[in-house]
Amino acid sequence: MNTKANIKDVASKATVSIATVSRFLNGKTERMSKETALKVQAAIKELNYVPNDAARQMITKKSRMIATIVADVDDYFATEMFKGISSILDAQGYTAVLFDSDTDKNREQGILKIIGEKSFDGLIMQPMLKTEADLRGAVKRNLPTIIVDRELSNSNLANVVTNNFDISQQVTKYYMNQGFERVIVITGELSGVSTREERYSGIRSVSPDAILMEVPSGDTKLSHTYDKLKNTLIRDDKRTVIFALKERWLLHLLPKIMADGFMVNQQVAVTGFSDTEVIKAINPGTSLINQNPFLLGASAAELLLNELNGEIITENKKIIIPAEFK
Amino acid sequence: MNTKANIKDVASKATVSIATVSRFLNGKTERMSKETALKVQAAIKELNYVPNDAARQMITKKSRMIATIVADVDDYFATEMFKGISSILDAQGYTAVLFDSDTDKNREQGILKIIGEKSFDGLIMQPMLKTEADLRGAVKRNLPTIIVDRELSNSNLANVVTNNFDISQQVTKYYMNQGFERVIVITGELSGVSTREERYSGIRSVSPDAILMEVPSGDTKLSHTYDKLKNTLIRDDKRTVIFALKERWLLHLLPKIMADGFMVNQQVAVTGFSDTEVIKAINPGTSLINQNPFLLGASAAELLLNELNGEIITENKKIIIPAEFK
Repeated sequence: MNTKANIKDVASKATVSIATVSRFLNGKTERMSKETALKVQAAIKELNYVPNDAARQMITKKSRMIATIVADVDDYFATEMFKGISSILDAQGYTAVLFDSDTDKNREQGILKIIGEKSFDGLIMQPMLKTEADLRGAVKRNLPTIIVDRELSNSNLANVVTNNFDISQQVTKYYMNQGFERVIVITGELSGVSTREERYSGIRSVSPDAILMEVPSGDTKLSHTYDKLKNTLIRDDKRTVIFALKERWLLHLLPKIMADGFMVNQQVAVTGFSDTEVIKAINPGTSLINQNPFLLGASAAELLLNELNGEIITENKKIIIPAEFK
Repeated sequence: MNTKANIKDVASKATVSIATVSRFLNGKTERMSKETALKVQAAIKELNYVPNDAARQMITKKSRMIATIVADVDDYFATEMFKGISSILDAQGYTAVLFDSDTDKNREQGILKIIGEKSFDGLIMQPMLKTEADLRGAVKRNLPTIIVDRELSNSNLANVVTNNFDISQQVTKYYMNQGFERVIVITGELSGVSTREERYSGIRSVSPDAILMEVPSGDTKLSHTYDKLKNTLIRDDKRTVIFALKERWLLHLLPKIMADGFMVNQQVAVTGFSDTEVIKAINPGTSLINQNPFLLGASAAELLLNELNGEIITENKKIIIPAEFK
């Protein structure tokens, strides 16, 4: 074997998560069983794994600060991703700092300009902007950059995303096989957000007639959206699955759907992308799509470290992290 | 009138929130009614309000970056506080960046050391550490600093906190007046976290016999804590209010308490500190304590700007933001 083992190889050899290996490398073994720690140690030895060479960078004049930009810092998805990023960077003596573009493209441009001017060594971003050219126009220097969660058009930047299309397709098939006849998709504005577009395409590849309901920006408690949804549900007896592209929508709709009795006899089912345990707390029977934001972040940080170490990445410039349906 | 008007004066004159005034100053008027915008404009004119003099700082060699450290970036409370900080700093041409101490004191020390070495102009922190000396030992330069949410001992630093004692006392009285006979307090480890200690003291000032249940660190889904709670509840018929010092605890306990029928006939009530709408989504009848993390952050940012502008703060070094019970 000639190829160098990476943290993912260690994790899979030890049959633990990357986060666990990362914690081990950081010396955080308090919350780890002795057995787990020994397994990780054995895997590191067997694979001859060497954490990315931090010493090599010490001689260069670097800030050792990595900028992370997320679209909305209030999303648990975003902060878990940041924790994943930090867990990997910490082990290499880098510090991750977090910027919030607050889903505002102008604000994002301002932040990028500042990052370009300051001495950050690298950037991991969940972009609002759409192309690499937009990014370069704002940063104005050659800054190693990884795109995470979303995709840019016309871009050669390394990219880490969830398998949005595939998992949405699989889940839609699952419900069709259970005898559901109609899908209603609940989402924020679809156009221009790659993750949402991919998910919607995945659903439509199975159910071309899926009904799209975009939540208007002022409808924070989804009362308007629920009225619209209810009107559709009471119109006929079609068994319907409500597929939310974001947990926040489910949080407001699910209690109303339950209170109005729609879920009796599995007439209506609810599913969607979910980051926390809230929905299962409200209705334990719900099956949901769980992304792995910690791993998305950790993987992005690994790609960035490779670039910082001057490794030329010819393959694996796009890493797809599978979501789980359960 | 000799004293200079500040953003809070404008907000109260216009009978809007500080956040609204801040949005107005940032030119973000899309989500604001015309009437609101005109009210804010009139108040600014009437009070002759001038946003802190950014020009004065332009001549000095500053990074215009402000470091924020929160205890756990996954908490909605922390990220909303960061949004409040950003909203004020943005208007003055500063950029807030967020660091996550991940509830780890060693990590916090490392972050402080880095912030001390880099050219940040100021610091707003929700501290794990306990004294100003600990802070100074890590930062090692004279960095304008505001402490938020928690308090340090032996410290002269400006401080913004919730009225933890008072609101906990008021809420406990409210339930005692409703005929509840027992309080069970659910919290993480109490010792050394000033917010939790204040809240517990407020409860005990009304109900000295309040039962303290500290959630062990491994009990993430609170199954052990629920067993303990259930054993106490079934032992007798005392009407009991369960008072959670953090929303996360309620999230896991409330569905179990409801499922086991304890809330029938108001035998058991549930309350606590809450940051999001999740608990009301699960049980709309629940009354909760809502802090205002956005305002905590915005107020901390205002105090910091005062220091950066060289204003000598002789009063209002401690700002107490009242929570709401509803």
